[in-house]
Amino acid sequence: MTTPVGIVGATGAVGQRLVQTLAPHPDFEIAALTASSSSAGQSYREAAKWRIDSPIPDHVAAMTVSETDPAVVPDDVPLLFSSLPSGVGERVEPAFAEAGYLVSSNSSNFRTDPDVPLTIPEINPEHIDLIEVQREERGWDGAIVKNPNCSTITMVPPLAAIEEAVGIDRVDVSTLQAVSGAGYDGVTSMEIIDNAIPHIGGEEEKMETEARKLLGTFDGNSVEWLDATVAASCNRIPTLDGHLENVFVDTRADTTPEAIVEAFEAYPTVDLPSAPEQLIHVFDDPGRPQPRLDRNTEDGMAISVGGVQATAEGVQFNCLAHNTRRGAAGASVLNGELLAREGYL
Amino acid sequence: MTTPVGIVGATGAVGQRLVQTLAPHPDFEIAALTASSSSAGQSYREAAKWRIDSPIPDHVAAMTVSETDPAVVPDDVPLLFSSLPSGVGERVEPAFAEAGYLVSSNSSNFRTDPDVPLTIPEINPEHIDLIEVQREERGWDGAIVKNPNCSTITMVPPLAAIEEAVGIDRVDVSTLQAVSGAGYDGVTSMEIIDNAIPHIGGEEEKMETEARKLLGTFDGNSVEWLDATVAASCNRIPTLDGHLENVFVDTRADTTPEAIVEAFEAYPTVDLPSAPEQLIHVFDDPGRPQPRLDRNTEDGMAISVGGVQATAEGVQFNCLAHNTRRGAAGASVLNGELLAREGYL
Amino acid sequence: MTTPVGIVGATGAVGQRLVQTLAPHPDFEIAALTASSSSAGQSYREAAKWRIDSPIPDHVAAMTVSETDPAVVPDDVPLLFSSLPSGVGERVEPAFAEAGYLVSSNSSNFRTDPDVPLTIPEINPEHIDLIEVQREERGWDGAIVKNPNCSTITMVPPLAAIEEAVGIDRVDVSTLQAVSGAGYDGVTSMEIIDNAIPHIGGEEEKMETEARKLLGTFDGNSVEWLDATVAASCNRIPTLDGHLENVFVDTRADTTPEAIVEAFEAYPTVDLPSAPEQLIHVFDDPGRPQPRLDRNTEDGMAISVGGVQATAEGVQFNCLAHNTRRGAAGASVLNGELLAREGYL
Amino acid sequence: MTTPVGIVGATGAVGQRLVQTLAPHPDFEIAALTASSSSAGQSYREAAKWRIDSPIPDHVAAMTVSETDPAVVPDDVPLLFSSLPSGVGERVEPAFAEAGYLVSSNSSNFRTDPDVPLTIPEINPEHIDLIEVQREERGWDGAIVKNPNCSTITMVPPLAAIEEAVGIDRVDVSTLQAVSGAGYDGVTSMEIIDNAIPHIGGEEEKMETEARKLLGTFDGNSVEWLDATVAASCNRIPTLDGHLENVFVDTRADTTPEAIVEAFEAYPTVDLPSAPEQLIHVFDDPGRPQPRLDRNTEDGMAISVGGVQATAEGVQFNCLAHNTRRGAAGASVLNGELLAREGYL
Repeated sequence: MTTPVGIVGATGAVGQRLVQTLAPHPDFEIAALTASSSSAGQSYREAAKWRIDSPIPDHVAAMTVSETDPAVVPDDVPLLFSSLPSGVGERVEPAFAEAGYLVSSNSSNFRTDPDVPLTIPEINPEHIDLIEVQREERGWDGAIVKNPNCSTITMVPPLAAIEEAVGIDRVDVSTLQAVSGAGYDGVTSMEIIDNAIPHIGGEEEKMETEARKLLGTFDGNSVEWLDATVAASCNRIPTLDGHLENVFVDTRADTTPEAIVEAFEAYPTVDLPSAPEQLIHVFDDPGRPQPRLDRNTEDGMAISVGGVQATAEGVQFNCLAHNTRRGAAGASVLNGELLAREGYL
Repeated sequence: MTTPVGIVGATGAVGQRLVQTLAPHPDFEIAALTASSSSAGQSYREAAKWRIDSPIPDHVAAMTVSETDPAVVPDDVPLLFSSLPSGVGERVEPAFAEAGYLVSSNSSNFRTDPDVPLTIPEINPEHIDLIEVQREERGWDGAIVKNPNCSTITMVPPLAAIEEAVGIDRVDVSTLQAVSGAGYDGVTSMEIIDNAIPHIGGEEEKMETEARKLLGTFDGNSVEWLDATVAASCNRIPTLDGHLENVFVDTRADTTPEAIVEAFEAYPTVDLPSAPEQLIHVFDDPGRPQPRLDRNTEDGMAISVGGVQATAEGVQFNCLAHNTRRGAAGASVLNGELLAREGYL
Repeated sequence: MTTPVGIVGATGAVGQRLVQTLAPHPDFEIAALTASSSSAGQSYREAAKWRIDSPIPDHVAAMTVSETDPAVVPDDVPLLFSSLPSGVGERVEPAFAEAGYLVSSNSSNFRTDPDVPLTIPEINPEHIDLIEVQREERGWDGAIVKNPNCSTITMVPPLAAIEEAVGIDRVDVSTLQAVSGAGYDGVTSMEIIDNAIPHIGGEEEKMETEARKLLGTFDGNSVEWLDATVAASCNRIPTLDGHLENVFVDTRADTTPEAIVEAFEAYPTVDLPSAPEQLIHVFDDPGRPQPRLDRNTEDGMAISVGGVQATAEGVQFNCLAHNTRRGAAGASVLNGELLAREGYL
Repeated sequence: MTTPVGIVGATGAVGQRLVQTLAPHPDFEIAALTASSSSAGQSYREAAKWRIDSPIPDHVAAMTVSETDPAVVPDDVPLLFSSLPSGVGERVEPAFAEAGYLVSSNSSNFRTDPDVPLTIPEINPEHIDLIEVQREERGWDGAIVKNPNCSTITMVPPLAAIEEAVGIDRVDVSTLQAVSGAGYDGVTSMEIIDNAIPHIGGEEEKMETEARKLLGTFDGNSVEWLDATVAASCNRIPTLDGHLENVFVDTRADTTPEAIVEAFEAYPTVDLPSAPEQLIHVFDDPGRPQPRLDRNTEDGMAISVGGVQATAEGVQFNCLAHNTRRGAAGASVLNGELLAREGYL
């Protein structure tokens, strides 16, 4: 018995990763694909310019793409995965939620709204119950659930392990982000060959706010954000996939790199189909993790960490995750699995 | 009237930049070129596999390369520029200094020795007089003067401006470094295409120590290092030239981004032939500076800065310098010009 | 005494190269800049997103961009350089020619029209007089003159030398083309990092037709194209600038690589301000020319050649030119200089 | 029942691909690993600096590496896969063959020797019986079998289909080769970022000779090479894996692109464990195949073809294969499977 699911915005970079992730899924079955009206009526093969380096799944390729509109998505598809530009998501996602669909969304709109759960199932699964607050406030039958930005999700698991072990006062973080994070057309070749760009619009603020909400405390009514300062500096570099981050953490209590490594390795995973067996993989080699070599660890769903060292006020370390798997499509699917396990479907 | 100078280790990546920089120099004239014994006796054209994208200067190409040995470098060449692997530099540079030569060196050995001046002429020219301490202690007629590591020199000018304006308590810095910093054969293509490497051996320690010595106070006898903590995380990325750095600074006194920008722009340059007209160039566009677009600013001798923002404890900003010009060859030549101006030749 | 000139389509990739080339020109002075209506009224600094790695010339930056319309370009600007998308050029260029302007155009429209001169001043300057045929047929006071496509211009000078020496029967050519040839937004980073694309729309046909017209014979009325077969295969690779080409030539008469090298080196240049001193530079090293090292030879206006070898039916060789200098902006400017010398201004 | 096999030169780029390919092999079991004497005695994990983006197989990682010497490889390992530098292979492979081992070798030495089979199992499996000639002439119990160079193997399957359909008179071919073809340290990052190199030492000759031997006729005693001219031009470009080639073929009989596509698609594969289900995959999209998107087709063992077009004397097309799988490790393993099927083990 599988649950029929839909993909809203199925032709973009993350939409294609959603297709790749959901096609072989044990519990979900792709039953609807939507895109902009110019693609509606075409087969998915025609509508999507498939650019993933494994073949387009045959049965999905033959499906017809419909418009992104609650009126045309079948009612017996309870769960939708959304990866729309945030401006579009802001308009479309509430319409779907109002029409009764559960929307597991990767789009950046609403992520810091007080009644919208922003969840990583291994980190803060209990936040999912903000759905009840949301439904009450907005009068919806459906709901909107968010996963964080790809650059946020890369550092939050190791930060969660540190917060639990010794507490966090402050985080300074620098990112080296892959071009796929901007979508297929987001970064031109002339901008990035033999180059790096020290700014990604809105990204620093996302890291600073989302991390604190994810590491916050949910009391059944609202989330109290983590009381720590976060300063981020975000860079685009010429890699295809995999965000690498340098993190400097001031801890509340004294600690050692060894204790932090132990906390990383002991941090639990969850029992959901898309979750990695080990959430945080720690490398001894200070030259790892590297995007090309390590982004696909555990099907791209693990967080890789290395270079753990003491600083004057705590520790520094490097972390890496696959930005369109763990950081986008896989994160949304994992939230969908959490919704299923928690009985929301 | 020009001064004859020599280049020790003339065939490597920095050696070639030294040739390119010194060939048209108004005050210096290349009079000696040394390399390993396997190259000795060859013309420079044969010995150097020239890989700079401007032609090899004709008159230098025809010169004969000699062995790196004080016995074979002419006595009437008072000033040598050295860019040797640090293990070789450690052995060879004292021999030259003992034999009476002034060695302006880019090699990393001895940089933090108490009696070795580590100087950036625009920042701490007065440290050059450590030469007198060095000569007294070591009994040399010549001397060794060092410029800092390429990753250090990129951030120290803006840090000097901040230190002078409001004082520095702490620095967290992440680097995105070009492959030329490792020399021609330092990074293989398979290591770096579609990749980044979050570790450069010894680099973090160099940034942490050299910055504090450069920003320290010289009382005529010794340098008291700046009392601040510096934590660095160094990454290699697929760019050819230009080190980009994200810097987070905790300041002693309260400040604003506007005040810091003003301090950057007001920071003076020096009147030496290779010095830039404006030491620190500040960009308003938060997407700048970028390695490919901005590394050649003022012939690659300026520091480019952007993204100046407030943080909880001070400011963050990005900075960029050309690592083999400002960060190596140009830095050594500038120190040579300082030696000339201060009467050491 | 300088001639005022205009740049039509001044904000694009080639438009910016035209600005860079014309700003310091000894005989021409930039007097008008046009762009699409959305940019009209802005300063050039605002309208152009300047992406060349040397600064935007100050006096051009301050100029106001006007719409691309003969009605708004001053009448005392006799010569316009055009680099429009071919669809736009097809519509706009005749309007300017009819209004009396001389248009030296890099756009691909009209290149193979019988009454439009397609010229490389070093190769077929006499074709410029097709202007008279054009004026008679079309009733224009102005005229349109074209330079060839960037991939064509790279191979035609060495082919011209071979044609003159021993005659050409057939050419098979493969190209390795830089991303700048597609304009700033033409190739996305996700398409080209760690990749190559074995097709560039329309490019193969341009090489096959334009080369034969350029090497053809002008009898005062029309150009008889060279009677040779040309087969091209065009590839995009991850380089920023510089098209590299592998050329296999069947010659009419027997020859040797030595004779062909001699013909390359003896091929004359022209006495125009932007022409290189030596048109074809021949490398002995079979590993040269390389895009990054050799594209800027003679300010990017020379053709670099290497790897000349015998084949069963003739010779093979590699050639390289800077695609936005020699292959676009510089080619148009050179044609403008030819127009001036031939008295058309 | 699996056959124990050894890997000679197991730590290099192709050696690692051999480990990756053989570890899960259904019929072969890795029983010996050799490397240079400096690695002998170490575990494979220590000796190999593993750089493939899937984990090192655990049971292989723990094996001890021995010296490359017939005296230390167990006698009950009948089949060795060799990927040594050609100079080493020239010395070592005969010693193993004389000692009774079957050597399936990827090294370039001996490939064009008259008594050494150079085979691609789908193309010329009957050539394997040159082993008997070899044994008689050299008095060996073992034998040496070769697979071709990675650039040769990419074009030979489509050429074989054309030869069989209409005959081949002449081939002009240009290659765009990945850096992995030169081994892990073969191409430095400074050589290839934003660049291409129009020469690979010895590669053009390999393509010209090996292709004619592979497509030749074996009469039981010797191979008569195909009577056609082949001219090659080989380029290195900044891709990690996957050689792309532009091929121009003069055919003996008239033909059409449609007939050639049909011949490609009808060309049979072989029934061996590592062979692809379809040997030649043809793309309609002229922009394919592309290295990054298509190199892994059928586990990297298929040949991808596109851009089939008519020329004056025949056809032109593009082809692609994974150079370290189909072009090296996979080719050697496939030859080993052929040796097994033909009863040589």
